[in-house]
Parts: sequence; C-alpha cells; structure tokens
Amino acid sequence: MPVLTLGTVAFDTIETPFGSSGKVVGGAASYIALAVSHFSPEQHVVSVIGNDFPMEFLSELERRGAKLDGLTRVEDGESFHWAGSYHNDMVGRDTLATDLNVLIGWEPCVCPQGKGAQFVMLGNLDPAVQMTVLEQVSSPKLVVLDTMNFWMDVALDNLKKIISKVDVLTVNDEEARQLTGEHFLPKAARAIHAMGPQTVVIKKGEHGALMFQEGKTFFAPAYPLEHVVDPTGAGDTFAGGFVGYLASRSRANGSVTWEDMKQAVTVGSVMASFTCEAFGTSGLAALTVDEMKARWTEYNALTACGPIAWP
Amino acid sequence: MPVLTLGTVAFDTIETPFGSSGKVVGGAASYIALAVSHFSPEQHVVSVIGNDFPMEFLSELERRGAKLDGLTRVEDGESFHWAGSYHNDMVGRDTLATDLNVLIGWEPCVCPQGKGAQFVMLGNLDPAVQMTVLEQVSSPKLVVLDTMNFWMDVALDNLKKIISKVDVLTVNDEEARQLTGEHFLPKAARAIHAMGPQTVVIKKGEHGALMFQEGKTFFAPAYPLEHVVDPTGAGDTFAGGFVGYLASRSRANGSVTWEDMKQAVTVGSVMASFTCEAFGTSGLAALTVDEMKARWTEYNALTACGPIAWP
Repeated sequence: MPVLTLGTVAFDTIETPFGSSGKVVGGAASYIALAVSHFSPEQHVVSVIGNDFPMEFLSELERRGAKLDGLTRVEDGESFHWAGSYHNDMVGRDTLATDLNVLIGWEPCVCPQGKGAQFVMLGNLDPAVQMTVLEQVSSPKLVVLDTMNFWMDVALDNLKKIISKVDVLTVNDEEARQLTGEHFLPKAARAIHAMGPQTVVIKKGEHGALMFQEGKTFFAPAYPLEHVVDPTGAGDTFAGGFVGYLASRSRANGSVTWEDMKQAVTVGSVMASFTCEAFGTSGLAALTVDEMKARWTEYNALTACGPIAWP
Repeated sequence: MPVLTLGTVAFDTIETPFGSSGKVVGGAASYIALAVSHFSPEQHVVSVIGNDFPMEFLSELERRGAKLDGLTRVEDGESFHWAGSYHNDMVGRDTLATDLNVLIGWEPCVCPQGKGAQFVMLGNLDPAVQMTVLEQVSSPKLVVLDTMNFWMDVALDNLKKIISKVDVLTVNDEEARQLTGEHFLPKAARAIHAMGPQTVVIKKGEHGALMFQEGKTFFAPAYPLEHVVDPTGAGDTFAGGFVGYLASRSRANGSVTWEDMKQAVTVGSVMASFTCEAFGTSGLAALTVDEMKARWTEYNALTACGPIAWP
C-alpha cells in the first residue's frame, strides 16, 4: 500500500571521534524513503530542496519507485544543512550548524496521488508542518510520527496537537521522559497512549527499542555492531523500515496486527544497524535483501533461548 | 553441584529520589547466596561479619541450604557498611560512606567441604582476596568473577591475575570499556577473552546484558519494570541466578553448554528485576518459583516475533 513520507531532504556534515563525513546527502526523508523503498515500492515523498541538491540522489529515489511530485525545488535557495559533532560515546552530539535555508517559509504540498496514501510517515520536522501535511491526506490507515526534544522545548502545544492525531509515536527514551514527566518507560508509554497514539515506540539507540500497545510490550535489541561509523539517520532508517514493512504487510482494509508491528520493529532495527556502519545514505541505498535477511537471522538468534528447567 | 559463594555480607544504607532504606542487610554474597539458593541447595558461603549482624538473616541462609562454615564472625568488630545515594536516573550513584570494618585484615578461609565446590562465584571484592579464595578450591569446573571499576583504578595488576584464572567475567559496559580501552562491546569482549575468560557477560542495567563466547553472542533484555525502588544488589542477584542455574544444570563432569548459559542469563535477568523492586534482600528471599516462572514467561515473550516476509 502507498506510503507518504515527510521529512527533510538535505545535507549533513558530521564529525565523529573516528572520522568526518564531509558534506553528504542526509535528512530524515532521505533515510526514511530509502528504507521504505526496500519494502514498499509505492511512495510519495514530501520535502523541499534548494538549487544545490544532487540530481543523482533524486534519480536514485525515483529509480526505487518514489514519486517526487511533493518535492518542492526552490530555484533561488539552498538546501537545509545540518552539521554536528559526536562525542566519544557516539551517542551525545553537539550541533555545529543548522542552516534552515529552504525550510523557511516552505508550505508543503501533497500531490494528488499522495493524498490517497494509506501509510503516512511524518519524519522529524516542525509539528505545524507535520499537521499541514497530515491534513492533506484524505483517509490514512496508519500514521507514524517521529519528533525530537527540540519541538518539546519550542512548540509543545503544536506537538501535542499532532501527537493526538497519530497512531504511532516514535521517540527516544529521554524524549519520552521529557514529554511525559515519567522516568520509567512503561509509565511514560501509558502517558503517551493517553495523548492519542495507540502504539509507542521508544528508541534507545545502541540499547534497542521498546514498543508498547494497549498493555502489550515488545523489545527489539540493537544489533551489536563491531564499529559505529555514524549513527546519524539511524532513527529515520528505523522508522522507514518500520513503516515500509507495515505497508507491505497490510490487509486490504489497511489494518496491521501486533505481530506485524513486532516484525516491523525488528526489520527497522536491523536496517538501522546498516546505516550506522557508514556516513550518509549510500550504504542504505546499496543494501540487498540477502544482506538484510542474513543479518536479521543472526539478530533474531541473539535473544533465542530454550525453556528453563525450573527447580 | 555445590557452589562456593564469596562476597560481602554486610549492611547498606541507601537513598534514592523516591525513598530511603534505613540500614538493611546487603552485600554481594547476601544477594548471590539467596539467588543461588533458589536453584542450587548445596552452597558454601565465604564472607566475614561483625558482632552486629542479625542472626535472622544467617538462619534464613542456612534454612535455604547454605553452609556458613566459611563465614568468619569477628566478635569485636562491626560488619562492612556501605551508604549510597542514587541520582534521579536510578543508575548513577554517589557513595556516602564505605566503612570497611571487619573487611580489614580478613583472611578468608574456605571450609573443607567448600574446597570441593565445582562452581565458584567470586563476588565483587579486592582481587587479592578473590585469588586467595580461588586458590583454596581444589578443582573448580566453572569460576565466575564479578568486579568493578574501583579495582581497575587501585589494583589493576591483581585484577588481571584473577581475571586470567576464571571462566566467566561479569562487568558492566563502562567497566568493560575501562578494562579494555575498547568502546564497542563486541571488541571489548574479544579483548577480555584474550585476558583469559572464555565467556564475558556485559551487564547494562535497565538495558539488559550481552554475553559473548568464542564468536557467539547472546542478548538478554532487562525486564521493563514499572518502578525501580532500588537497583542495589541487582548485579549480584543476576550473578547468583546465573551461577545457581548453571550449577543446577551441569552434567556429571561439571560441563555447561552455551544453551545452558543463555538460559542462565535470562534467569539472572529475571531474578535481578525482583531485587530492583524493593530495598534490601527480603524480596529476593521471599520469591517463589511460580513468581519467577510467571515473570520469565512474560520476559521471554518480550522479544519473540515470527519470521519476516521479505520482499
């Protein structure tokens, strides 16, 4: 079923204790769209770029089935650019530059075909922009929202409005705590349920992800990597894999089951591990089904153990 | 098969953002011995107490099958006492007092029966004391060592000596990094293998535990608790559940399999979750098999998902 993907298509400049990326293609929608495309060929991307954005990447998205009618190109503007530097733990990071550029004043427009999308992935952006896009989709079956602490600091009211309209919220553990005031994650998840989303995915980076839905809990570990080159985009890849898998699994009426969701979280986790192994999106684009299968099989065995011999 | 348990039998005074324990029975060997006793009735405890230690707790250990011949009682001394205060995250903590008391000058003595123990759990203590005890065990089949960053700071040479003599090392993620200089845990585990232990268990508290053995990896999540009252003793409970389960599963020659170890890590994780739900050891002592079974079943389902429908 068709997926609508909202987010930035942009440039990143990343430094880590182990290397530097230079200026590379990044942005939430770039990672989400590539991840979605591995499972769901029907996809509409809503984003904005400047005159500086490489055609090669857009061609790659189109080659993978993504429709770019909703991608606004501002001929006299520059693309969004984020620069950041990771700490030694490869988790904490400092933002060195946030050049909003074409994001300023952008009014996202969903193309006619995109309005009929049944799966909607609202990547991290101003909640008002996320709402504008969601309102243009006629009858979505499943809406997933990603956000971050920044919007909790500067746009909490709008954030709560969009949260109340979505089916799934993905946030990291600190964001879940900030949003709810609850330290322990099962309680934080319940507080988020009360805000609207039936399903809450709490991302913990190298520590995996917890998913909560109506009293049910699922835990997906992170694939234990030998080396992390750059975690940028891992959360977006996770979200894209999650939504793409659900879209590929949905029934005629668009419904997805808890079992679908559990599988989708593991698929997202495995795909995110590939994103961490390189700067930028090229690794994710080049990923084959066989590579994903092989790592998922190894990943799935990580937690498998037989029944306990109780005393 | 008989287990030898080394560690402190002591008092703790704990403050958390949510409450205070007062002075309660604690110490590594107290938690380990109780956890072991749920699976392995044959146990020899090696520790030291002062004249202030409550008989009730010792009677409880004996009632549960633990032999206390190796428990030195110093009639003119006071028991070891640790006081600490947990930060808001319930992970970081400040030590407020470390009253070594009877630990000073203690020369641990393994009773004749204890020398024949086949499973040895060396709880966190001065590595020289751990070595003294291990040298008194005639032919151990499996030796598990727990330690902490403090000994890496003040007794690294002795710590490396005892590490080279054991089969399993349990440390937390920061300790694994400090010990090896490797940030990524699969690499840290390989560096620890090179120091001697064939099996490495890296404890990550609320984020679960990773176990490594000869290229094999297992991940056990932490049970997602609604509320943590006090994490003190969780690592010791984990270790005790791990060793106790292995001792209960071992073959006539004392061997344990990778499958046994995987099960043991899940048992240790589930038992540790109970310890986090109350101050002190009383919850662990009162735990029933039915309670453990029920939580383990729920825990085991946390990560269970069906096969992926690949594109």
